[in-house]
Order: sequence, then structure tokens, then C-alpha cells
Amino acid sequence: MLNDRILRELRAIVGDDYVRAGPAQLIAYSYDATFQQAPPDAVVLPRTTEQVAAVLRLANRDGIPLIPRGAGTSLAGGTIPLTGGIVLSLTRMNDIKEIDVGNTCAVVEPGVVTATFQAAVEKVGLFYPPDPASLNQSTLGGNVACNAGGPRCLKYGVTRDYVLGLTVALADGRVLRLGGKTIKNVSGYQLIQLFTASEGTLGVITQITLRLVPLPRHRSTAVAIFPKLDDAGDAVTAVLGSGVLPVTLELMDKLAINCVEDYLHMGLPRDAEALLLIEQDGNSQMAVQQEIETVAAACKETGASDVRVATSPEEREALWRARRAVSAAIGRRAPNKIGEDVVVPRSQVPEMVRRVRRIGEEHGFETPIFGHAGDGNLHPNFLFDRRKPGEMERLERAAAAVFRAALDLGGTLSGEHGIGTLKREFMEDALGADTLGVMRAIKQALDPKGILNPGKKFPTGTTGDHSGFLTALPTLDSPAGEE
Amino acid sequence: MLNDRILRELRAIVGDDYVRAGPAQLIAYSYDATFQQAPPDAVVLPRTTEQVAAVLRLANRDGIPLIPRGAGTSLAGGTIPLTGGIVLSLTRMNDIKEIDVGNTCAVVEPGVVTATFQAAVEKVGLFYPPDPASLNQSTLGGNVACNAGGPRCLKYGVTRDYVLGLTVALADGRVLRLGGKTIKNVSGYQLIQLFTASEGTLGVITQITLRLVPLPRHRSTAVAIFPKLDDAGDAVTAVLGSGVLPVTLELMDKLAINCVEDYLHMGLPRDAEALLLIEQDGNSQMAVQQEIETVAAACKETGASDVRVATSPEEREALWRARRAVSAAIGRRAPNKIGEDVVVPRSQVPEMVRRVRRIGEEHGFETPIFGHAGDGNLHPNFLFDRRKPGEMERLERAAAAVFRAALDLGGTLSGEHGIGTLKREFMEDALGADTLGVMRAIKQALDPKGILNPGKKFPTGTTGDHSGFLTALPTLDSPAGEE
Repeated sequence: MLNDRILRELRAIVGDDYVRAGPAQLIAYSYDATFQQAPPDAVVLPRTTEQVAAVLRLANRDGIPLIPRGAGTSLAGGTIPLTGGIVLSLTRMNDIKEIDVGNTCAVVEPGVVTATFQAAVEKVGLFYPPDPASLNQSTLGGNVACNAGGPRCLKYGVTRDYVLGLTVALADGRVLRLGGKTIKNVSGYQLIQLFTASEGTLGVITQITLRLVPLPRHRSTAVAIFPKLDDAGDAVTAVLGSGVLPVTLELMDKLAINCVEDYLHMGLPRDAEALLLIEQDGNSQMAVQQEIETVAAACKETGASDVRVATSPEEREALWRARRAVSAAIGRRAPNKIGEDVVVPRSQVPEMVRRVRRIGEEHGFETPIFGHAGDGNLHPNFLFDRRKPGEMERLERAAAAVFRAALDLGGTLSGEHGIGTLKREFMEDALGADTLGVMRAIKQALDPKGILNPGKKFPTGTTGDHSGFLTALPTLDSPAGEE
Repeated sequence: MLNDRILRELRAIVGDDYVRAGPAQLIAYSYDATFQQAPPDAVVLPRTTEQVAAVLRLANRDGIPLIPRGAGTSLAGGTIPLTGGIVLSLTRMNDIKEIDVGNTCAVVEPGVVTATFQAAVEKVGLFYPPDPASLNQSTLGGNVACNAGGPRCLKYGVTRDYVLGLTVALADGRVLRLGGKTIKNVSGYQLIQLFTASEGTLGVITQITLRLVPLPRHRSTAVAIFPKLDDAGDAVTAVLGSGVLPVTLELMDKLAINCVEDYLHMGLPRDAEALLLIEQDGNSQMAVQQEIETVAAACKETGASDVRVATSPEEREALWRARRAVSAAIGRRAPNKIGEDVVVPRSQVPEMVRRVRRIGEEHGFETPIFGHAGDGNLHPNFLFDRRKPGEMERLERAAAAVFRAALDLGGTLSGEHGIGTLKREFMEDALGADTLGVMRAIKQALDPKGILNPGKKFPTGTTGDHSGFLTALPTLDSPAGEE
């Protein structure tokens, strides 16, 4: 617990209204989009970079854990205050400070909601492509801290590809102003890239300069139905081999299709093993149409039983509604779900889908799968019931098997959700001891007291023994500090 | 000098033929594409990652400077063996190990020449866009170490955007295997990005996995002539505001145009203040044509006196010949030239061109300017004669004024050439003491003995005093160690 003196100091920095320490207030900052829950000792809501730096100086002086938080939409436990301490909520820092049309970039505070920003830049004919599923809630600061992705990454790249400048407050309160409105910059080490995807463990992002691109004038969307899963995998290769780089190549497997159909009754084919949702954009309607036709032909040649191209905005919207509903539709099927985020080389997508299905069967879980097939980034979901005795232990074994399968196929633990608490124990398996050692050395150089988002990203357990990697995490049933 | 024992150890690692220590042999590794020259004590040409690691262990044990070297095309002094020591030439490690069409990526050794690689992937319908001007000599390892750019970066991004995996040998001989064939990866800190642009100061790159994209089927090229420089600047803004993101938007100023015309006699307009070379590509010939027409219209509206679209491959080639000849054409005009590489926010390009011209006039230099206007990345060249008394001192003052002008306009010291020795003394001005401190802390964490490419990237002088930043560098006339 923080003592009264520290709370007084925090109030002096951000104002009385913006330090919250009552139990009822803390509960709101104790969870994210996973099943975990652990309350902080205080929540501080700064308004300026200077306030953030002052809070950090205080926390660093006294060795108090400080957990930066955007909208709390993490699917990896990235912002759970495992160790107590101060949650630093950046939601009040939500100004779009500038949209610079001439330099096609924008300067924003970290608490701006992704979708709000996208709408603002689209009004002036510009486009910010990264589109994590949580974009109506997630904040740009969180997007940068996790290097967020989304369906459009195949053509447009991930959040990292849009960050031109960052203001970052370090653990000791020093403030770095990195980059700016220039597109290219090789002056020194690429620190902007180092802070991107650092999940709040190296510094607190207080301002972001984002690159924008011209808003494409035309879009075309198609859905391809595959009786056989392997054919959908071949289609992905064939599409990219056709010379077209679509905006999206989204996969849903049979169970995911059925979950959506149960939910939306759209007439999706329940017996298809896979569905690909494909979108292309561009400035020439004819070129976009041509490319979608090339894609459709590639899908048919590789075994699609049906390819439908949306002929109206309403049809396009219906196809996307199906894709966007996947997560909610899956959620209706069981009391709990956990969504994984593994990546494999694109050619291994069908094999990975098969392995996930086998792992689900072996451990007794339904495992609907969807994801960004063009990027090899899959979201296998496990449906479970946390109240069942032994369920979490079984889930732990199944999730570990999925991670091992991804690594075995030349893949990685996470494509866009981050490591957080959920995957930290597998970091050494994924990266090797030497690489992890270098990451620890960088963490030590920037945050020697380890106050920033402790317990995230780095393994806590001993090499090779990952038991408890899920079951030992704090939840509502066993709040942190009371075990 | 290295003693015989060390030379014997080096020979035991890479074989007798691949350790070179005679004065005549060392001269070949004493320079790069700048005016600097300093000989190493030995040149070692390894063939494998294991050999690189073994050489590093030896150098680290004895505190011997180790300077990684690709083709030596650095324009910033990045690979000059300032301090003597071992030059580690990666040119023998030049296998294209795999072109993986299904996963649209390739695995290469660092010594592969950029153009050789591009030709190889284009044969199978794939495309590696980064195109530094030195691409017929430069190596992919050097491209990654410097985050090389080129004209196509406006649409396609820089080298960094294509690096999926790296094998890196650290100063102490530990070997990190980072990333792989996956497109997305947020497992841990983005170390791949940290080693990219590190100019050989953090580790030696021994293998690279590069992302590829489909080879566009059609290209269209245009040249726009501007009687007034400001109008060319407005044209860049108008083009990007038109919703088109061209592959290239290359600028040549009046003096650069005249240098090329003196050289090639192509009929370029000698009285034009600026010329823009614009290229677009895509899969639909009609869409590419439409976009080039949109661009041409934007140029005319902003004041272009003439816009010519190449109607045949020969015409296109002629336009590019003019652009590619700029550097050689400028070189014919004076005994020496130095090419700078500043970046400003795109809207500041006309102002930066004006400031460079004024600085040239004030210090008595001709300053032809060309560069990547769409990226705000300009290459102002200073024409000079190193033998003239006082010339280098004047050049030093003029170059410093250019750096200050770029920083003053919100720009950076380098967009694609790197910092090397030429700009190191301006790093604190550009980045601030705190950011430089973080970079030093990372360098210290990864290379505590400071053996890797010493004297590069970081300032050696005292804050604020940059005198001697050019004139004190070793040259042919005053070889290192003999001053």
C-alpha cells in the first residue's frame, strides 16, 4: 500500500481529482481483456508529459511499481497491476494536437482512441491503416506500446511502420523527444522502434507523431468458401503469387464460421472448412476490380467452391460484420474463452490450423480459429469454463502445446497482442537465453530499479518449467495479495 | 599493430588466405566513398557465422578494434578503420541461401550485392524495393547496418521495413538469431530494429531474412519542369494531396540539372529552377497511367512549365539515366565533392534548398542539390578542392551550417547515409544529451569494451565545440598514426 505522504505527493503533481485510491475506484483498473485481475494501490491520471515525468521520478525514488495503461484492452495481461503499485492511466491525454496535411502526419497524445483518430484523418483525405479489433476502445499509446496490428497489415504494415516520433518519459523521469515529422531518420539507434512493442516496460509514451497515407478512393471485398482447409492455404499462396498484395486475407475455420452463423444467421456455409475474406483498395475503381477478380480466380483455381464479390457497400458491410463478429460469436459458446495470437510462416497456416485442432481434441476443448492468414497470424481460441475443477490446468497444457507448435513451425509467440503475463514463461523457449539476456541488459540500462510494468514480458520461472504459467496468475477468485 | 600471435590465431580461424596484413593489401581497406583514409592492422575475410563469432571473441579478449565492412560504399565514413585494428570484410559471405516464394521472403548472407539480389528475386516475380544509389556495389549487410534508402522509399519504405530476421554476432562472440520468416512478431523488444541502422557498432550481421513483395507489372515515369523552385515544393504537396502515393518523387535543382546536361547533353532545360522525376507502378496499366496523369495535372496546376510522360521503355530509361548520372555529373565539376544527406519535413524542402544555396554562396561553394523530395531527404553537394589552402576549414563551416539549418527546420542529420565519422560531432545537437545518453547506455550494455567500429556514430568532442569535425579526420595526405 502507498502511504499518505506518497498519495499527497501524487495529488500535488496531478491535482486531487486525478489520484484515486478507494477500493471501489481501484477495481476499475484491476483487469484487462483477459481473465486476470489484480488491484493497484492507486490510479493516477496525468494530463501532461511533465506530470508523467514527475510521477515517474517519485515512483523511481521509492521503488514503487508503475503500470502504464491505455484503454485496458490487452489480450495478454499487459496492463494488469500484478505487483500493486501505481496505475498510470493515460486516458486524459487524448488530444489530437495536429493533423499536418502537407507533411501527411499527425501529432497525438497517447490516450486518443484509435477509431476517433482514424475518423479525424479520413475527414481530410488521409488514412491511418492499423486496425486492431479493439479500435473503438483501444488507444494509440497502447497501440504503439504493443505494436498493434489488424486485418489491414498485410498490405499496410503494423503500427511500428507509422511511428515517426515519440516523446517518452523514462523510469527516472528523463524525457526523450525522438524523431519528428521527417519520414526518414538514421541519426543514432532506432530508439523509436525500441520503445514500440516494449509494452510499457522501458518508458511511458506521452506523445506520438504518426505517418499517414492518402486515403484510397475505392475498395472491393470478396469472400471465398473452401470445402477443404488445405485449399484455403494454397489460395493464400496463389493470391500472393498472382502479383496482387491485397489489403486483407482473413481466415475463418469451420467452427468460427459456425459460431458466426449461430449468432448472425447470415447463411454462411456450415460445412465449409474455411472461408477467406479478401479486400483490396486503390485509387482506380477498375484496377481494384481487376485485382479482386485476379484474387477470385486464384481462389477458384485452388479449390474454392464459391467466391462472392460484394457489389454494394451494404454487401461489403455484411461481410465485414461477419468477420468483426467472430470474437463475440465465439464468446457466446462457452463461459470463458482465451484468444491466442501465434504467428507462423504463411505457408504453415494449414498445418498450424490442423495442429491446433488436434491439440483441442486431445485436451477436450473446442478451438475455433480465425486470423490474418496473409500474415500467418492466427488467433486460435480455447472455449472453457473456469469454474470446472481442473479446467485451468488442462487449458494451461493445451495453450503450452499451441505455443510449442508455433515455435516448432518456425513461428513466434505473438503477432500483435504482446507477451504481457500470458506468454512470458515461454520467452526463453522462443528467443533463446542469449537474446533474452540482451533484452534484460537493455531493460536494466533503461529501468535499473525495475519499476516499469514489472512482471511483464520477461519469464519469472525457471528454465523449462512452465507449470502455473496460467493457473498461478491472479484472478477475481483469488485477488493478488490474498493468496 | 597486431602481433604475430594474434595473426596466427586469426589464420587458424579463417584460413591463411583470408587474413591480410601487408601494407599493399591494407590500403584497399583503408577508405570508403568519402575523402577519408586510415589503414587497418589486418583484414579478415570470414566465411561463416562461427568464424565471425570466433574473430569477435579474440578481438574482445584483447580489446582490438573490429570494423565490419561490406563494399565500402559509405558516404559517411562508416567503415573507415580510424583506430586501426581488424577490418572484418563480409564480402565472402555472399550466398543467397533461399528465395522462398510461398512465404515471399529470402534468406541471404550479408555480402550479397544489392542489385544481384534484386535481379534474382525479380526472376521469380518478386520485388525487393530498397534501391540505394550504390546498389551495384553495396551489400545487403551494409544496407541493413545503415538502413539504406533510395528513390523508391516514398512508396515502399526503407531497408528496415524489409528485415524479418537477423543473425547477429555480438562483441563477445555470442550469436543471436532474431526473427525469421514470420511477417509479424512482437515477442520481446524489437532487437532486429535496434541492429538495423546501428552501423556496425552493436554487432556483426551474418545472416538476413528479407521480406519481399509481388513485382509490379507496370511502371510509368514522368518528368516535370519547374521555372520556380517553390512551385516544385508545392507540386510535391499537391501530388501527395491528390491521393496518389508515387513510387518516387525525385528533385534536382538548377545546378544539378546543369551538371547533368553538361555531362549527358540530353536537352534538359538549363534555366529551370527544379525538375521532378516521378514514377508510379502497379498491376493495372490503366491505373498506373491514370495515377501518372493525376500527378501530371497536379504539377501543371502548381506551376510546371512542362510535364513529359515517358511513352516507351527507352524514354523511361533516359529519364532515369539523367537521375542516376547526377552524382557522377556533379563529380566532374570540381576536384572533390561531399554529398550531404539531411532530412526535413517535406513541406520545408523549398526552404531547405534556399538555405543550402545561401550557405553555399556565403562560404564560396557551388552546391548542387538533388534528392528524394517526397521523403524530404535532400543531398546537397559541396564542390571543393581539397588542395586549396583553407578550403577544408571553409567546407567545415559550410557543412555545419547545413546541419544546423536542417535541425532548425525540424529535420535530422541523415536519412540514409548514416552518421559514421562525418556527422558524429552533431549528434548531441540533433538528439539532446539524454537521448544520446540512452544510446550510450545501450552501446555499453552490448559492447562494454567498445571494440565494435569505435569512433563512429557517437561524438568525441566536447559539447558545442565542433571545430575539426571534418578537418581532423585522417586522409590520404595525413594517414592515421603518422600525424
